[in-house]
Amino acid sequence: MSSPDAADGADLGLLSPVRAGSAVAQATGDLAFLQAMLDAEAALTRAQARLGLAPAEAAQAVSRAASAGRLDPRGLAERARAGGNPVIPLVADLTAAVGPEHGPYVHRGATSQDILDTALMLVARRAVAVMAGDLDRTAAALARLAAEHRTTPMPGRTLTQHAVPTTFGLKAAGWRSLVLDGRDRLAALVLPAQLGGAAGTLAAFAEFAGPARTGPDGVPATRLVEAFAAETGLAAPVLPWHVLRTPVADLGAALAVATGALGKLAADVLVLSRTEIGEVAEGTGGGSSAMPHKSNPVRATLIASAARQVPALASILFGAMTAEDERPAGAWHAEWQPLREALRLAGGAAEAAAELAAGLVVRPERMRANLDLTHGLIVSERAGIRLADRLGRARSREVLDEASRRTAATGAPLAASLEALDAGGIDTDPAAYLGAAAALVDAALERESTS
Amino acid sequence: MSSPDAADGADLGLLSPVRAGSAVAQATGDLAFLQAMLDAEAALTRAQARLGLAPAEAAQAVSRAASAGRLDPRGLAERARAGGNPVIPLVADLTAAVGPEHGPYVHRGATSQDILDTALMLVARRAVAVMAGDLDRTAAALARLAAEHRTTPMPGRTLTQHAVPTTFGLKAAGWRSLVLDGRDRLAALVLPAQLGGAAGTLAAFAEFAGPARTGPDGVPATRLVEAFAAETGLAAPVLPWHVLRTPVADLGAALAVATGALGKLAADVLVLSRTEIGEVAEGTGGGSSAMPHKSNPVRATLIASAARQVPALASILFGAMTAEDERPAGAWHAEWQPLREALRLAGGAAEAAAELAAGLVVRPERMRANLDLTHGLIVSERAGIRLADRLGRARSREVLDEASRRTAATGAPLAASLEALDAGGIDTDPAAYLGAAAALVDAALERESTS
Amino acid sequence: MSSPDAADGADLGLLSPVRAGSAVAQATGDLAFLQAMLDAEAALTRAQARLGLAPAEAAQAVSRAASAGRLDPRGLAERARAGGNPVIPLVADLTAAVGPEHGPYVHRGATSQDILDTALMLVARRAVAVMAGDLDRTAAALARLAAEHRTTPMPGRTLTQHAVPTTFGLKAAGWRSLVLDGRDRLAALVLPAQLGGAAGTLAAFAEFAGPARTGPDGVPATRLVEAFAAETGLAAPVLPWHVLRTPVADLGAALAVATGALGKLAADVLVLSRTEIGEVAEGTGGGSSAMPHKSNPVRATLIASAARQVPALASILFGAMTAEDERPAGAWHAEWQPLREALRLAGGAAEAAAELAAGLVVRPERMRANLDLTHGLIVSERAGIRLADRLGRARSREVLDEASRRTAATGAPLAASLEALDAGGIDTDPAAYLGAAAALVDAALERESTS
Amino acid sequence: MSSPDAADGADLGLLSPVRAGSAVAQATGDLAFLQAMLDAEAALTRAQARLGLAPAEAAQAVSRAASAGRLDPRGLAERARAGGNPVIPLVADLTAAVGPEHGPYVHRGATSQDILDTALMLVARRAVAVMAGDLDRTAAALARLAAEHRTTPMPGRTLTQHAVPTTFGLKAAGWRSLVLDGRDRLAALVLPAQLGGAAGTLAAFAEFAGPARTGPDGVPATRLVEAFAAETGLAAPVLPWHVLRTPVADLGAALAVATGALGKLAADVLVLSRTEIGEVAEGTGGGSSAMPHKSNPVRATLIASAARQVPALASILFGAMTAEDERPAGAWHAEWQPLREALRLAGGAAEAAAELAAGLVVRPERMRANLDLTHGLIVSERAGIRLADRLGRARSREVLDEASRRTAATGAPLAASLEALDAGGIDTDPAAYLGAAAALVDAALERESTS
Repeated sequence: MSSPDAADGADLGLLSPVRAGSAVAQATGDLAFLQAMLDAEAALTRAQARLGLAPAEAAQAVSRAASAGRLDPRGLAERARAGGNPVIPLVADLTAAVGPEHGPYVHRGATSQDILDTALMLVARRAVAVMAGDLDRTAAALARLAAEHRTTPMPGRTLTQHAVPTTFGLKAAGWRSLVLDGRDRLAALVLPAQLGGAAGTLAAFAEFAGPARTGPDGVPATRLVEAFAAETGLAAPVLPWHVLRTPVADLGAALAVATGALGKLAADVLVLSRTEIGEVAEGTGGGSSAMPHKSNPVRATLIASAARQVPALASILFGAMTAEDERPAGAWHAEWQPLREALRLAGGAAEAAAELAAGLVVRPERMRANLDLTHGLIVSERAGIRLADRLGRARSREVLDEASRRTAATGAPLAASLEALDAGGIDTDPAAYLGAAAALVDAALERESTS
Repeated sequence: MSSPDAADGADLGLLSPVRAGSAVAQATGDLAFLQAMLDAEAALTRAQARLGLAPAEAAQAVSRAASAGRLDPRGLAERARAGGNPVIPLVADLTAAVGPEHGPYVHRGATSQDILDTALMLVARRAVAVMAGDLDRTAAALARLAAEHRTTPMPGRTLTQHAVPTTFGLKAAGWRSLVLDGRDRLAALVLPAQLGGAAGTLAAFAEFAGPARTGPDGVPATRLVEAFAAETGLAAPVLPWHVLRTPVADLGAALAVATGALGKLAADVLVLSRTEIGEVAEGTGGGSSAMPHKSNPVRATLIASAARQVPALASILFGAMTAEDERPAGAWHAEWQPLREALRLAGGAAEAAAELAAGLVVRPERMRANLDLTHGLIVSERAGIRLADRLGRARSREVLDEASRRTAATGAPLAASLEALDAGGIDTDPAAYLGAAAALVDAALERESTS
Repeated sequence: MSSPDAADGADLGLLSPVRAGSAVAQATGDLAFLQAMLDAEAALTRAQARLGLAPAEAAQAVSRAASAGRLDPRGLAERARAGGNPVIPLVADLTAAVGPEHGPYVHRGATSQDILDTALMLVARRAVAVMAGDLDRTAAALARLAAEHRTTPMPGRTLTQHAVPTTFGLKAAGWRSLVLDGRDRLAALVLPAQLGGAAGTLAAFAEFAGPARTGPDGVPATRLVEAFAAETGLAAPVLPWHVLRTPVADLGAALAVATGALGKLAADVLVLSRTEIGEVAEGTGGGSSAMPHKSNPVRATLIASAARQVPALASILFGAMTAEDERPAGAWHAEWQPLREALRLAGGAAEAAAELAAGLVVRPERMRANLDLTHGLIVSERAGIRLADRLGRARSREVLDEASRRTAATGAPLAASLEALDAGGIDTDPAAYLGAAAALVDAALERESTS
Repeated sequence: MSSPDAADGADLGLLSPVRAGSAVAQATGDLAFLQAMLDAEAALTRAQARLGLAPAEAAQAVSRAASAGRLDPRGLAERARAGGNPVIPLVADLTAAVGPEHGPYVHRGATSQDILDTALMLVARRAVAVMAGDLDRTAAALARLAAEHRTTPMPGRTLTQHAVPTTFGLKAAGWRSLVLDGRDRLAALVLPAQLGGAAGTLAAFAEFAGPARTGPDGVPATRLVEAFAAETGLAAPVLPWHVLRTPVADLGAALAVATGALGKLAADVLVLSRTEIGEVAEGTGGGSSAMPHKSNPVRATLIASAARQVPALASILFGAMTAEDERPAGAWHAEWQPLREALRLAGGAAEAAAELAAGLVVRPERMRANLDLTHGLIVSERAGIRLADRLGRARSREVLDEASRRTAATGAPLAASLEALDAGGIDTDPAAYLGAAAALVDAALERESTS
């Protein structure tokens, strides 16, 4: 049976399999946002109580009433349209729930943006933590692959063509390095509480407190910001950031970098999984009812789908920094859904990447077979260097070109083609031309995996 | 009470007030997509029955079973993750619902993409129709404003500064012109059904039909495409467009143009609503509990929020045209949610614009007062032209500069300042310098309002 | 020797090889824009002369002086900063060049935006024509490939895995279909001249003409727009479109669709060129000095680089539709460079695509070898359909799964594996399971190649 | 006279006045990139000489020859097309210039990407330094404004409407806070040299050095990376980052944040400069020849134009992280021009912002006049709080609504309207309701201005 919600236009993840059912999707649903807004309201009243600006009983009453399960998210969403944000109807419902005695201490001195922005940060904090865990798991699995395949030779490919050999360990170490970059960007985020009142001056808080408490410069009003931040567990901002949107832009950037990092992993898995290449496979690929032989790299596909979306979402968040006045007419409202979507896509991609990395099947024998596809041409760089020592640059180039032509035409090993041109004795084993791959893996693995 | 859906990460519109509760949001929810996928499945079986490739009873059985209300959208969303798309579990459930006799005629010969793409187009058709209606309503209201205020003078503003006078009618005619552009782009869209089978060759359809029916070149298989399109009411494509994504890119472009058109309307309403300008107001603005004097231009704000998001979503859809192979690993999956979101934002903006245009309060007296703010400097262009006739170009510029300085410094009317410099007799009434505004309004209104 | 221009920050194409030295790059350089602005100025004076609003001699003088070769583009660029656009210094220089007698007829009644927007359209027209020619050439070459390889079998690939066979002709027909879509989008563009005066009312034109000529409704002023458009060869707009930016947004959309179409071609060429796949090659690939065996798909790479940029540039143009007032402070200025860049990237990609399509090397023998890589599993869909007829759905699935497992494990042909399970006699030749591919090619080639 | 360069499609800044003639434009021109590539080549040979892998004379010869003034940037740009990047022809020209003896030490062991990526970082370092200086100058000027106008009252505006008073000092302190955020993001960037050889294994470097020098794990090859980084002054990377594009993505993010920060400043200046508002003006605005009274906020306009472009450019850079293989076919090539353009736009915006901030004219008397526009309604929040103390919440709301209606209708001061309703004695002076504005300014100014 379909739920009544679905009948009314709900989005349950049907069109976004990369995050459907993921932990981060749950942490970023409308109910999670609603609860975060209520948490912000309760934190505000508690902070005021802590400073003697509200009765302790009011704080308790608001905290008790602040349960999303008691409100109607769809109704709030629809009522949000009239004023342009969901906090307005939320405050009405919460005030009613708290009752006449303590109701006046609900949302006291605050503006809608204080609550919604604080909720955005609370939700982001939770989603980022979930995602960071998945990135750590991904990095750990990749570290194991890098160590295990430190010297497993495979073709290095540039512009789709075999270039020179590399190792799968170096590839995995590179993936891990990117994943750690993404995790570090997330770990570096500062997520602040928001409190400023109608236009960011904290005037109403001071007014409610009364002149005796606030003094000429409103010092206690800024203390209220600290108390509020402490209640939420978020950072205390120096200034209200209603229109100073660095925290949101930074989130967009970090999510885009983290998703891009996973996008690289996915792009490589997609290439290496190709039927003709077959060097890796997802542990359990997606099947096809009509084509039982297919084992699709589904996780990589879904990660790739996220990596195609998050950069554009981040661009919306960057653009929203251009926010006029003390509250902009549109730029702020344009942030909410793209930020949520970016959290979901990045988080869903991280969950998929953790599974992908943990289950990745690596096939050294296919790597070796592919290395031999060009009959030694994959080490022509090395042959060129050795020949130049012997014959000089110009002549060596001629010999190598001719040998390469022969090998490409006949399939004869490059060594044989060189031999036939009186240029034998060069080691053309791809596995013997790995450069500093192993040393690079070792160096890369020295980077700490957990932040 | 929160619904169970919400508890599991559902998106009900809380973070997107521009579309919360709108008709287009309802038409694009997960349940609507689910129903569209089922409609596509049923249309396929019916098309096969029409061509004698399936029993009529099977077509009836599938059509009967194809009701979204009987399925579980959340469960399907979560099961979609394994194979990367929701059609795979959907087919399983639908086949089970149809029963063993007719089950083999469910999804017969099709690939997931046939169903999902067809569903995308079915949903888009419905959403676009809703939106086109709102654009027509918006254009009609703007036509009335343009006619009524054909010669109502107001300041023309460039780079934020008063330039020369214009009329509110010309402004409204321009808005309408953009709205009609958006509507025309939507009306020009061709939304095709999708049918190609596993890799776009229609091979399985021919195979199921048997060689006797399909002949060497599979002609009846292409006839099946036509029959399927006819059952869905969508256009019949020449080629399967699994990886020829013009229909989706065109949708993105049309939605971006339409939303940009509304964004212009919103931007102007936001400027003209400013407390200091006050030339227009939304009929019923959004209020503020703490500041009873505020009447926020909420609809314009919400439209502006959509106009900031849709261009980036369209860029994702354009990027997805770069789709490798016969089905890409990620590019296709990256289209679904951005396309839905673009439909919702554009449609929600159109609904808001229809309300905004119908209720817009226009204040000619404020326009007139603002025209006089510069004491005649707003017609200095005209004065310059007239003076140049009289005094020559160089001298006229000197006189005008000096007169402008005097007027700016003292607030004396420009006419008086010119008089004082022996350059009197020039008509400085802003209402007398409207150029071809009225003629332009007339010309613009000749464009048909309904497509 | 480097030129002095380069020393001063010039961009000559060094960082954009996809368009360096292309015809479209030349048509969109600063000098081309400068000339287009001068052409617009000369057209305006001529249009006024045509209506008796300026002496014929003035029109001749302005037309003579309007040569970009006589002006200093770098100096104009730097002087543009003071007023925010290059027309202001341009008019000063042009007026000086025309001399005192006819100088007053330079830019008479116009605003900077009239000239710059008209120049944008003139440049776009030229660039689009160049590009359309390259798209036609590309389509013609692809038509030849489609016809020639109408039944050349190759693996159809979905989510990177072999699915069922297709033909190279069908693939080429699909590419061509996209290229024609792109060309049609370009051909449908309406590129209008711009003329509105300071705030879009044409007031100064009427004022210069005098009341006797313009009448109460300024009819002749709108006739001037028609005359101006005729002189430029551009379309005559109904309204000045200073802030009605559909023409620019439409350009962005068409360029994004056309580039996306080429991006699909490039993506497939990149896949099919891979060392392990080798089904196509660019006629003359890019070489590597150190690795003589490499033949990089350079044109496809450059096209792909353009397809990654144009969608984001189009998003800027869509966003610029949200343009406040009668001239926006920033949105207009944000269009110029992204529009130029989009023209260049799309045009450079089209030039590269024409070369790529004309020279593409197709290797049917590699396609055939790849078809056999899975030992018949690529036609398991067909086997499943045939077996189901014989054994029923459930049993046939069991048999096929078991046969597939055997073939995948042992490399035995699928036919043999089926035989061993008493399910022999099924045609597993990939070349015999092409569905309607040939018929689809024929249908697709009926679409006209030249618009 | 136009230069020959211009005739061939050069971009000299004509379409991008925000950066035309700026220091950052000069630092990012093709000649600057060319020189940076040559610097990278010279650094590589010197690094090899330092480790005994090349003769000191070769290092000197390459360093001497590595002068962009001796090469032809346009010719290189056009020759870049064949191989897809400009390093290939550059190496040929440089090798020829160095001569036969030392030529073999040019580009020894390197790949094109080593040189181009290192050049990108060298150019970015220079551009970022220029930009950081302008941001510091901007911040310093804003600090002075914030201190001077710490308590200068002005209307706080939300959703375009007057909300409650704020101070201009708080506004300026907020702008400065964003500018410092942008500068901090730039300062935190790590810009690494690039060195990896054909596929990132450093194999050719080891091969040239010979087995005796490199040992089993190629340790000296990694030492070469350090030596190379030291010669360039860039950071030494742990891994070659050919396909680990965090440095480029981070650049994109930092430039987008910095430009967004300036975009906020510009957006506010544009609002506050409006003819009707007039609270600030650019010191020397852009003029209009036809309308001498106009003083356009040109710098803010140009900054706004940059802020509309950089987010989309950053999205291209984020997307390019998804780079397949050891060198991607397109993703890498798609970075160069958007990165350059983002540097130019951000840098040009910073230069404009420094001028804007230094010359901004502030008009406290207009702020005061605007505060009084609503006759006291701007402090209705305060009145509501005070009345609620006195009359209870419900009754106070009624009284305030009624008083607000009277004041809005009649223009009578709010104090009088309240008095008439027996609710007098409330301080409705906007200047007396500034909350913690001054304290917030003080707190914000404690943040260090220079990084």
